Amino acid sequence: MDYSADFIKAAEALCDAGRFIDAKGWVPATSGNFSARLPDGNIAITTSGKHKGHLKVEDIMLIDAEANSLDGKKPSAETLLHTFLYKRYPAVNAILHPHSMNAIIISKLFGQKLVLENYELLKAFKGINTHEVKIEIPIFANHQDILHLANIIDRHLEPMKLCYGYIIAGHGLYTWGDSVPDALRHLEALDYLFECELRLHGVRKT
Amino acid sequence: MDYSADFIKAAEALCDAGRFIDAKGWVPATSGNFSARLPDGNIAITTSGKHKGHLKVEDIMLIDAEANSLDGKKPSAETLLHTFLYKRYPAVNAILHPHSMNAIIISKLFGQKLVLENYELLKAFKGINTHEVKIEIPIFANHQDILHLANIIDRHLEPMKLCYGYIIAGHGLYTWGDSVPDALRHLEALDYLFECELRLHGVRKT
Amino acid sequence: MDYSADFIKAAEALCDAGRFIDAKGWVPATSGNFSARLPDGNIAITTSGKHKGHLKVEDIMLIDAEANSLDGKKPSAETLLHTFLYKRYPAVNAILHPHSMNAIIISKLFGQKLVLENYELLKAFKGINTHEVKIEIPIFANHQDILHLANIIDRHLEPMKLCYGYIIAGHGLYTWGDSVPDALRHLEALDYLFECELRLHGVRKT
Amino acid sequence: MDYSADFIKAAEALCDAGRFIDAKGWVPATSGNFSARLPDGNIAITTSGKHKGHLKVEDIMLIDAEANSLDGKKPSAETLLHTFLYKRYPAVNAILHPHSMNAIIISKLFGQKLVLENYELLKAFKGINTHEVKIEIPIFANHQDILHLANIIDRHLEPMKLCYGYIIAGHGLYTWGDSVPDALRHLEALDYLFECELRLHGVRKT
Repeated sequence: MDYSADFIKAAEALCDAGRFIDAKGWVPATSGNFSARLPDGNIAITTSGKHKGHLKVEDIMLIDAEANSLDGKKPSAETLLHTFLYKRYPAVNAILHPHSMNAIIISKLFGQKLVLENYELLKAFKGINTHEVKIEIPIFANHQDILHLANIIDRHLEPMKLCYGYIIAGHGLYTWGDSVPDALRHLEALDYLFECELRLHGVRKT
Repeated sequence: MDYSADFIKAAEALCDAGRFIDAKGWVPATSGNFSARLPDGNIAITTSGKHKGHLKVEDIMLIDAEANSLDGKKPSAETLLHTFLYKRYPAVNAILHPHSMNAIIISKLFGQKLVLENYELLKAFKGINTHEVKIEIPIFANHQDILHLANIIDRHLEPMKLCYGYIIAGHGLYTWGDSVPDALRHLEALDYLFECELRLHGVRKT
Repeated sequence: MDYSADFIKAAEALCDAGRFIDAKGWVPATSGNFSARLPDGNIAITTSGKHKGHLKVEDIMLIDAEANSLDGKKPSAETLLHTFLYKRYPAVNAILHPHSMNAIIISKLFGQKLVLENYELLKAFKGINTHEVKIEIPIFANHQDILHLANIIDRHLEPMKLCYGYIIAGHGLYTWGDSVPDALRHLEALDYLFECELRLHGVRKT
Repeated sequence: MDYSADFIKAAEALCDAGRFIDAKGWVPATSGNFSARLPDGNIAITTSGKHKGHLKVEDIMLIDAEANSLDGKKPSAETLLHTFLYKRYPAVNAILHPHSMNAIIISKLFGQKLVLENYELLKAFKGINTHEVKIEIPIFANHQDILHLANIIDRHLEPMKLCYGYIIAGHGLYTWGDSVPDALRHLEALDYLFECELRLHGVRKT
């Protein structure tokens, strides 16, 4: 298949993001998946089963907005979580899903959401310009039926005004942004704030 | 001695694995040992006393399935733990034994086994495709008589259906797989899950 | 604009410092800002919104001692915290403001100051040559009105004999020195001592 | 001054050791000092005030067994701790003194000694070939009078059969070996075991 220049550019950005994310230890084994929405509405997304720290362009595939493979490759089992987010948020053009351990520990210690407030670093999130704000990270139970999970998440996100990410319990974080660098900045900030919360709670049940 | 192409390939894979494992801090000083089974049933294994982060092909030696040196080099004192595992599991072709600290802390806090459940990352283990599963990591007391220890471990593993690794208390982890990359994926996943468990227990006796 | 050789040298030192500081994980997302005072009294300072681990000389701008832009670029929102410190301490020629997590955790656990004593590493601070000394790191509440915050901090620093840094709660550390390497040495020592204190307190409220 | 080939070789080994030790985070700011005894009985030792992660051969100087400078350079303030150890242990040819944080936390939590037992990694120490052994790491109060401190330490070490290192409280670790790699192996093993002990104690006063 002949991929467009937009696809190649997005695929390279996802490979670079993978190396950065792996260096942080956030995608152990072959976990995690990443995607970017192209200008034509199709989506570049990681294929199944590759180590995300060693991605090559050929490990990225093309799907349409309904998650159908356009190049015959097999997408990640969690592809629907990506396509649902792109439909929910028209401004979002990149989604990152690492298995960062802080997200997993958060999900086992906190209930259905984590509230972040009073951190200067909250200003790393697009649209926030003060530490005097609260942001909420919903936590969902894990489920192997991804369509079921995607629907639960989508219904929860619908009434939320601002949301920068969610956690699937015992599984990992989903975060997003207008572009791959934007999503990476949100990821870096979220993991940092998760670790702050965990250190403050002494990693003990609240 | 003239080594076969299979041996050289296996030796290089073990050297690469050593660099990766050392970068994680899992083989301090000259600890740890690694092996790979060759197509002819002989085994490439690290020699005694080398730093596993700086292995060269000449630091890997050839033994037969009974742990006899085939090239005159001196194998690791723990070689029998490798040969017993290869006999027990015909599909296993690579064994990694790091001294990762999480395994050691686990062994001092938990009793005779660690049970891992409800983690998405369990899907990193060959044959598992849901987080709704339990895997058991047996923990054995350390012993300097390796034949004695190998027999105790082998009798314990015999009735187990699925086993991806075991811990020797105050010593380290043994894990394995169909190939070196397979064993490395299991190692990366196990250490990650050990750390999750330790953080959740607040590193306190259960 | 034609920048002076002094500016270029200072800008390169700040870029190098940024890479070092980012490698430590102390400037997540695009947080932090750094500056150096030039021999003519003007100041080289990081512009707003760049990742501090990937700074290029063009990401550094020139301001005067009153925080006015001299090259049309937009300085960091926290520029007044820098200019106030330069006025307060004539010997100081470099200021570093990372968002190191230890400083943030310290600010959430301790009250209005942290006292460091009985560490050999205190000798890393200019003018200290024994571990039998106490140094005090003031902690201020965060505020988005930087002029207001700068005045509060300046009034607090005025009567202090020796001060090597302060923390803004939930935000980060400011530290300084006679030169960029001097400020970096103070930063490295402070973060190390913050971590010692946190580990000794078991990350629990005192 | 014309340095001997032995000196150059020892100096290069110390520079390499410094880079390794700094990468571990064990010599923050300009802390730490290292030395190696030459075949003629003189000693190559780090000069005062340099960052130990960026050592060059010219940052290493030559002293005699009584700590007199033989090349006009200024040795570390702690030089007598090195020369006393070389006199006490004829087989020792290298001494490393990092400010590893684990040693400092150990010194603040434990009393006058740390006992290490039941770790397989104890076999990393020369002369130990089982985990069923106890080794003792003495902890001394810090003192700025180095001759006074050196005498206290020396009297304590005199009756000990086996000693691989000691801690100065709030300051750091001294460890040694027959060669620089030997001392590095001891350092790597000690820091690992210190961290095990701290994690097992939950970083809480015993």
